[in-house]
Amino acid sequence: MKVAIIGTGLIGGSFALSLRDNGLCAKITGVDRNPENARKALELGLVDEVADMEEAVAGAGLVVIATPVDSIPLIAVKILNNVRPDQVVIDTGSIKGELYEVIRCHPNRGRFVATHPMWGTEYSGPEAAVRGAFKGRTVVICDSESSDGDALRLVEGMYDKIGMPLSYMSSEEQDLHSAYVSHISHITSFALALTVLEKEREEEHIFDLAGGGFESTVRLAKSSPQTWVPILLQNKYNVLDVLREHIHQLNIIRKMLERDDRNGLGAAIEKANSIKKIIEKTTV
Amino acid sequence: MKVAIIGTGLIGGSFALSLRDNGLCAKITGVDRNPENARKALELGLVDEVADMEEAVAGAGLVVIATPVDSIPLIAVKILNNVRPDQVVIDTGSIKGELYEVIRCHPNRGRFVATHPMWGTEYSGPEAAVRGAFKGRTVVICDSESSDGDALRLVEGMYDKIGMPLSYMSSEEQDLHSAYVSHISHITSFALALTVLEKEREEEHIFDLAGGGFESTVRLAKSSPQTWVPILLQNKYNVLDVLREHIHQLNIIRKMLERDDRNGLGAAIEKANSIKKIIEKTTV
Repeated sequence: MKVAIIGTGLIGGSFALSLRDNGLCAKITGVDRNPENARKALELGLVDEVADMEEAVAGAGLVVIATPVDSIPLIAVKILNNVRPDQVVIDTGSIKGELYEVIRCHPNRGRFVATHPMWGTEYSGPEAAVRGAFKGRTVVICDSESSDGDALRLVEGMYDKIGMPLSYMSSEEQDLHSAYVSHISHITSFALALTVLEKEREEEHIFDLAGGGFESTVRLAKSSPQTWVPILLQNKYNVLDVLREHIHQLNIIRKMLERDDRNGLGAAIEKANSIKKIIEKTTV
Repeated sequence: MKVAIIGTGLIGGSFALSLRDNGLCAKITGVDRNPENARKALELGLVDEVADMEEAVAGAGLVVIATPVDSIPLIAVKILNNVRPDQVVIDTGSIKGELYEVIRCHPNRGRFVATHPMWGTEYSGPEAAVRGAFKGRTVVICDSESSDGDALRLVEGMYDKIGMPLSYMSSEEQDLHSAYVSHISHITSFALALTVLEKEREEEHIFDLAGGGFESTVRLAKSSPQTWVPILLQNKYNVLDVLREHIHQLNIIRKMLERDDRNGLGAAIEKANSIKKIIEKTTV
């Protein structure tokens, strides 16, 4: 199968490696509106050739849209406008709400499978691509009832071969859940970085003290604005909902500290500990 | 040198391993008010024998206090009351303010060296002890001018041999900095865990989506209330100061999201990205 990957950055590049390493493609054509990215992807051997979108899509059996989330809906429509019945189109975005609306009534909707492979790092660009990145990670397939049976089976088979457990939900559910487990973590990290940068002027001392858990909590703060502004704005209502709850929880802890509420703090931390059973399930 | 370790949990147990692996002790006596912990430490070979505090201290050249922070000041005073000029006492606590006050005027203050080796995990107890834990981590030595020269040199030499870069500051500075880089990260993780637990009822879906950065941000939420309630209360004023700033930063992000302030969000994330240069220094 020939594959066209639109967007040859962190996700597109890593996806290309996974497809190739699992024998899932004969040839990969990369498309990137940034010619520098496309050139690097070619140089790094992530893709076999570079082409413009029209040409790449025309020659592909599978088209993978791996661009920033705010650009996915329009690209998806443009591709569906000319899609053939022997082609399948997927996206890898972490938000599906707008995409869902934009392609919902498209006569070729069935050729599209909306997927969110749950992996990412704080880095971006083709140089950030990681071999074996997706293996063991869950992939969410959204609104699967809107995809043609053969298209869905092809995509399920592909993710299965990459080694990704499949999970099915609606776009609406997926966006809410992404807000809880990914988007809020990023906001927390950004805010934590800003807190430290704002208040702490003696960098030497931040360095000296950075062993205490700060590093893992703030890792995501290295994530780029190019990726994250679109994500946060596209998922605005869900993110705000979670963010308000998070601020509320921080205020509860603040008040307990202010009044030396030892029991309250102990109970809150003990409750927070039960996140353990959820996290530990994820490492299976 | 014979060493007595008071508190044979995560820190005391890991410290014992570091001392032994670096040929820094002839024999280690463990003391723990929880007999079960002491028994396990002995069983795991972290300590060579178990004794009560008086006996262990009397036979030791170096005494290491590695108990929860709120118990350190009183234990330190009790030991200093009977300390001999050939003995050195250190603690490994992450907060020094109260300890500083309590021992400041003690006639044997010189035999004490206040240290904060910057390492920890979200686990506790002797089974959580880690071999090689401290190597490469910074150790903060507080109020070093209050320690006798020979005591300070012994402790500096020991940490140096373990492979820990030394950093010097006052207790006051150390507590402020700990609030910024360790304590606030824990509060953030606890609050994040509570946010998710509060709002999200379908655990199956949390599991499905837990690849997206959530895990590293929430790791610290597994930390025990027994360790963390005392830390947060002991460092209350610094922690509240940072926590208020953190809530303020989250509210700024919230407002930018509410009014679709793309530029503001981009600038905030870009500023947060500069935490990179600080974190990256720490991995040297």
